[in-house]
Amino acid sequence: GHVATGQERHYGNCTGLGHYPGADASLCGMAATGASGTNAVRYGAMRPNVLNLRVVLPDGRLLHTAGPGRHPRKRAAGYDLTSLFVGSEGTLGFLTQATLRLHPLPEASAVTIASFPSVGAAVACTVQVLQAAVPVARIEFLDEVMADACSRFSEMELPVAATLLLELHGSQRSLAEQQQQTEEIVHQNGGSSVAWAEGQEERERLWSMRHNAWYAALALRPGCQGYSTDVCVPISRLPDVVVETKQDLQASNITGPMVGHVGDGNFHCILVFNSQDPEEAQRIHAFTERLGRRALAAGGTCTGEHGVGLGKRALLQEELGPEGLDTLRSIKAALDPHNLMNPGKVL
Amino acid sequence: GHVATGQERHYGNCTGLGHYPGADASLCGMAATGASGTNAVRYGAMRPNVLNLRVVLPDGRLLHTAGPGRHPRKRAAGYDLTSLFVGSEGTLGFLTQATLRLHPLPEASAVTIASFPSVGAAVACTVQVLQAAVPVARIEFLDEVMADACSRFSEMELPVAATLLLELHGSQRSLAEQQQQTEEIVHQNGGSSVAWAEGQEERERLWSMRHNAWYAALALRPGCQGYSTDVCVPISRLPDVVVETKQDLQASNITGPMVGHVGDGNFHCILVFNSQDPEEAQRIHAFTERLGRRALAAGGTCTGEHGVGLGKRALLQEELGPEGLDTLRSIKAALDPHNLMNPGKVL
Ligand SMILES: Cc1cc2nc3c(=O)[nH]c(=O)nc-3n(C[C@H](O)[C@H](O)[C@H](O)COP(=O)(O)OP(=O)(O)OC[C@H]3O[C@@H](n4cnc5c(N)ncnc54)[C@H](O)[C@@H]3O)c2cc1C
Ligand SMILES: Cc1cc2nc3c(=O)[nH]c(=O)nc-3n(C[C@H](O)[C@H](O)[C@H](O)COP(=O)(O)OP(=O)(O)OC[C@H]3O[C@@H](n4cnc5c(N)ncnc54)[C@H](O)[C@@H]3O)c2cc1C
Repeated sequence: GHVATGQERHYGNCTGLGHYPGADASLCGMAATGASGTNAVRYGAMRPNVLNLRVVLPDGRLLHTAGPGRHPRKRAAGYDLTSLFVGSEGTLGFLTQATLRLHPLPEASAVTIASFPSVGAAVACTVQVLQAAVPVARIEFLDEVMADACSRFSEMELPVAATLLLELHGSQRSLAEQQQQTEEIVHQNGGSSVAWAEGQEERERLWSMRHNAWYAALALRPGCQGYSTDVCVPISRLPDVVVETKQDLQASNITGPMVGHVGDGNFHCILVFNSQDPEEAQRIHAFTERLGRRALAAGGTCTGEHGVGLGKRALLQEELGPEGLDTLRSIKAALDPHNLMNPGKVL
Repeated sequence: GHVATGQERHYGNCTGLGHYPGADASLCGMAATGASGTNAVRYGAMRPNVLNLRVVLPDGRLLHTAGPGRHPRKRAAGYDLTSLFVGSEGTLGFLTQATLRLHPLPEASAVTIASFPSVGAAVACTVQVLQAAVPVARIEFLDEVMADACSRFSEMELPVAATLLLELHGSQRSLAEQQQQTEEIVHQNGGSSVAWAEGQEERERLWSMRHNAWYAALALRPGCQGYSTDVCVPISRLPDVVVETKQDLQASNITGPMVGHVGDGNFHCILVFNSQDPEEAQRIHAFTERLGRRALAAGGTCTGEHGVGLGKRALLQEELGPEGLDTLRSIKAALDPHNLMNPGKVL
């Protein structure tokens, strides 16, 4: 396991490539929010990759969630305190060290960009890639608004279409097979893809386009504010939920390019709006509530990775129901009886 | 997700093949103990595969740990109650329904048995297979005592040697590559393996030998009692810990064949002893304490899958330290204030 301190920063796949929004998170911040990202579909989100956390408890004592200095891959010794503190958003204690599971680097990687006739086709393709057990390493969705914005922002020449960025990891030989399977499924869904990028520089160029999505979205309406919200639904419900959300964005006349870690059933809308305009701010707010409720109605969650914070407390209540919320409150009261840690957040 | 009721039974890979010990566990029992098994190295133990649990709380109310009817792959909405109840060994509530993540069946599978000149060589081979990123589906270790016992019990003709059972999953083409990589690593460690079994019947025959390990161990000393204990350590420490444990078994003159889910750093000793003989019972007890402490000294846990129950409460204290144990106790007191659920277990 790799031990990181609370201050250590994570630059993901972007080392030396400049500074992407979200990519300056600290490792303990990522543990605190239960963060995840483009690689989660294959390697898991933070929770299964954190083996131990050192936590300053509200009374000042130091807790090691898996015991001091321990990092077995599997444990059945008492309640899983590590999983409890991952995603607790700073409300139970302050994380000062994380022990992480490492994965071997793949022998070879390849990236492609595929364009589809519709949002529904791109998402259906995602579902089929997963069902075919292609061990895809990343599968990222951009709707046509986002693809267009990214393409212009990063000076590339992508079609203005619903788009998937796909990355495969494996040995050279298994890569060839994965590529063939993936291409077949892309074509079956009416998509067409560019040649696979295998060199590091070329792969990073494609991903830097994706990592700049936030700035590309903001550039759609200079001077306006951005707000990124995420939901996550069972994969089988993803095509419907994405299509409905797209219709809602259009009907509500909102600038909200969509981008998603669709391999997990997780997607984001980057809402760009004039926060000085109360009517527009209200429209944005109503949209995010509908989005959260739509995810809940589909058996999903109001947030797959950004967390509850202050903004999603009401949705959390709807998601868990009174028994769930009472259970969260009991845990909070037991571990932080004086409500010192991030008071008002989550609960 | 697949929804299972509390009574539903799991026959693992053994459906229709008769009755293996451990394989009659209920799915909710497996969730309650945070169980795992031979497939965990690739597909994870219970925790990452449980998406939701329906729990009868001590006050009689029904909790759905991820909210009623929800089963997204990823959630960042409040504390992870699902992970808290998985492995809680019935001390926080009674599980009556589990929603599980399903994995696609592999296109093809192949199994081999490899024999090694020493226990250390077999375990070193395991570490190297993992480091080479071979996506091994199962990698099970038997020491030479266990291999011999299984071989005789199942009427096979295995060498009396430290042994690995390896299973690979993938497409036909990727399987060929994995097989070649695996064979190379086996040979580098002085091992030799039998031809790959690819047909279902032949694969099941090899696994039934492994699944009968418990009975094979008991048959070593008819009329004696069996006690299976498990520990789990970081993979890098596994060879040392297995070799030391082997020496300890020999020096203590204990019949304790070893069997392990070594891909997770997890192994078991099946201790077969005469419970009527106080001196022998005492020797067994002292051995299990040393085994637990040896795992702790190596940065591991006193149990990777069997849980704490009544027997490992003292080791749990050593593993977590006072801050950890106090935190477990606070959670127990908050969720089960009248200590109704499995009183005395774990804590
Ligand atoms: C453009 C953009 C893109 C993003 N993309 C993603 C994404 O792909 N996936 C994703 O999961 N998130 C994403 N995020 C959200 C955010 O970056 C992550 O959740 C990240 O993990 C936050 O880490 P941080 O260190 O910046 O924490 P902060 O933002 O500083 O804090 C986040 C919360 O965690 C608490 N916290 C921080 N550090 C600790 C600690 N050491 N101990 C206890 N509590 C602590 C804080 O109190 C706060 O409540 C994105 C954000 C932006 C703006
Ligand atoms: C020979 C042998 C081999 C084994 N191999 C393995 C193995 O490979 N991997 C492994 O992980 N374990 C193994 N075990 C241990 C055991 O089989 C597992 O832990 C299994 O998950 C227990 O499930 P069960 O339904 O039989 O529960 P039980 O044995 O009936 O109960 C186990 C504990 O869980 C609690 N519990 C059971 N059901 C519920 C529920 N619905 N709600 C709340 N609490 C509940 C009980 O109170 C008890 O504390 C093995 C055991 C034997 C005897």
